[in-house]
Amino acid sequence: MITEPTSFSAESYFATQSSPPNLGQEIQRVREWIQKQVAAGNRVVLVTSGGTTVPLELNVVRFLDNFSAGNRGATSAEYFLKAGYAVIFMHRQFSLQPFSRHYSHSTNPFLDMLEIEEDDNSPDGTPRISVTPEKRAKLLKTLTVYKAVQASGTLFTLTFVTVNDYLWLLRAVSQELSVLRKKAMYYLAAAVSDFFLPKQKMSEHKIQSGKGNLSIEMDQVPKILKTMVDEWTRDGYIVSFQLETDPELLIPKARAALERYGHQIVIGNDLHRRKFEVVFVTPNTGGHQTDGSAQYVETWVRIDPALTYPGIQQIKEIEEDIVDELVKRHTTWIGEPQ
Amino acid sequence: MITEPTSFSAESYFATQSSPPNLGQEIQRVREWIQKQVAAGNRVVLVTSGGTTVPLELNVVRFLDNFSAGNRGATSAEYFLKAGYAVIFMHRQFSLQPFSRHYSHSTNPFLDMLEIEEDDNSPDGTPRISVTPEKRAKLLKTLTVYKAVQASGTLFTLTFVTVNDYLWLLRAVSQELSVLRKKAMYYLAAAVSDFFLPKQKMSEHKIQSGKGNLSIEMDQVPKILKTMVDEWTRDGYIVSFQLETDPELLIPKARAALERYGHQIVIGNDLHRRKFEVVFVTPNTGGHQTDGSAQYVETWVRIDPALTYPGIQQIKEIEEDIVDELVKRHTTWIGEPQ
Repeated sequence: MITEPTSFSAESYFATQSSPPNLGQEIQRVREWIQKQVAAGNRVVLVTSGGTTVPLELNVVRFLDNFSAGNRGATSAEYFLKAGYAVIFMHRQFSLQPFSRHYSHSTNPFLDMLEIEEDDNSPDGTPRISVTPEKRAKLLKTLTVYKAVQASGTLFTLTFVTVNDYLWLLRAVSQELSVLRKKAMYYLAAAVSDFFLPKQKMSEHKIQSGKGNLSIEMDQVPKILKTMVDEWTRDGYIVSFQLETDPELLIPKARAALERYGHQIVIGNDLHRRKFEVVFVTPNTGGHQTDGSAQYVETWVRIDPALTYPGIQQIKEIEEDIVDELVKRHTTWIGEPQ
Repeated sequence: MITEPTSFSAESYFATQSSPPNLGQEIQRVREWIQKQVAAGNRVVLVTSGGTTVPLELNVVRFLDNFSAGNRGATSAEYFLKAGYAVIFMHRQFSLQPFSRHYSHSTNPFLDMLEIEEDDNSPDGTPRISVTPEKRAKLLKTLTVYKAVQASGTLFTLTFVTVNDYLWLLRAVSQELSVLRKKAMYYLAAAVSDFFLPKQKMSEHKIQSGKGNLSIEMDQVPKILKTMVDEWTRDGYIVSFQLETDPELLIPKARAALERYGHQIVIGNDLHRRKFEVVFVTPNTGGHQTDGSAQYVETWVRIDPALTYPGIQQIKEIEEDIVDELVKRHTTWIGEPQ
């Protein structure tokens, strides 16, 4: 049920809600890392990933959450790294991460990949623990890239839990990244709550049951993408995502987002088709092949659904094509005169 | 905010809400596994672990959740296995699991534990991948026990996501386990929602924002522990958990639960002290050391908080003492005449 809105602007949000305690330290680390990327001449993409929580109590026991394992973000981050980008991976705690995503505790438990062998060279007789021969080849690919990325220092990880953590981090990281101007991309794949409970309205302790039904009333999260475009970033290439379950709403909502926020591109995806089909919606700047009358351009990216079955069968990830196309567009964006 | 209750009994709940699609197959597997444990003369404990979700939409994008990483359940399951119990580990998808819990992707990423070495014996020249020497000793302990448990088949894992999945699974598994009579223990460590949204009240598609605030009204989950004691189990030893953030409520609520449900023991824990202090609350059956007048007996289990710091410093887990004490009480329970 939707009731009358309370209007939080981005400004009033940050003026009334508390910042996460360690924000200053985190941002200091981000700043130093960005300086290195600037010195190296790297392009940088901020990838946000996973869902945000909305705690219902100050001593949090219950919270509202958004469905997202973090597949889109974690997978895309790998392809951005492969394309030569430095990546700030800002993700929900315990959501999937680049590289380790291939080995979840449930689908491919790593303890099952290991075997214990006597080791004649071990000084104290401790046996050697090795990856079983049949698991070697696939892991070797992942591990080799992972180690190269670790050595190059091109992946920087930040975590959030609540929507409040997310908003404060996004603002601070965007402001830091703005020094890169056009060479910065913002790939906002996190599933961010549209609603929140201001700390002023939270109950201190666990909400007690047994007294009746639960009724929760939440305020709207401010539309910070507008502020991000206008104030936090400078000339960055901003990619937002629109997830819907009703296919009829996908294009209209993506267009409305571009209209409202004035950024570069919305990637629309349907919950049930997102692994093999997305749509790029952009303002029609005249550079695309259309009849010239349309205000927006839609470009569908599709792969054969049969290629996306999980497990060892999986031979293609749509994020490869999404990132490939975005890198091309970003290159054009960087090359365009102001 | 709490409003007037809608009363769902356990009976009306199961009559109106749908069972998870694969329940029948899962229970067939449980039944076969239980037969093996009966044949082997094993005691069996059902450990539930992790939080349950309450989806707000049929095509779920948003859900209410209960805070729980699954530490209590996953850790306890290891100690029950060590004590010779066969364990049904029924946990929230992606929550912590026994053994692999020591290696989360965030705190101890397994890719960082591996090194690539040339392997002269490899037929196709594929390098060997091994655990680095400094990580060997600790992993060896975990891995050795894990492999022994895998070989003995004494750990059976089931997963749930929603509170509805949980309730259907709990009912079915409890009914299957009742053949073990007193040799079954039920260790209900999952953080189960007190509220839910009946499917009849859910919106089909993603709740749209931009139209105002969100107001959610939820019904109470039926108090199924009463039905579990009276109808689903027979003579089993039932352990429930009471988590509070207000220390004043811990004992009164634990006693109220025993009064209402008539089971064997409530383990009370405060959110901020749960790693080093819990309280066992039981009906006073006269067998315990009291002045004889009290209706309930409280036994505190405490360890030095300094021993519980996470990471390599951690040298004691309170679950070791909890399980140790429960195993003793369960032994007494089994020995008691009907």
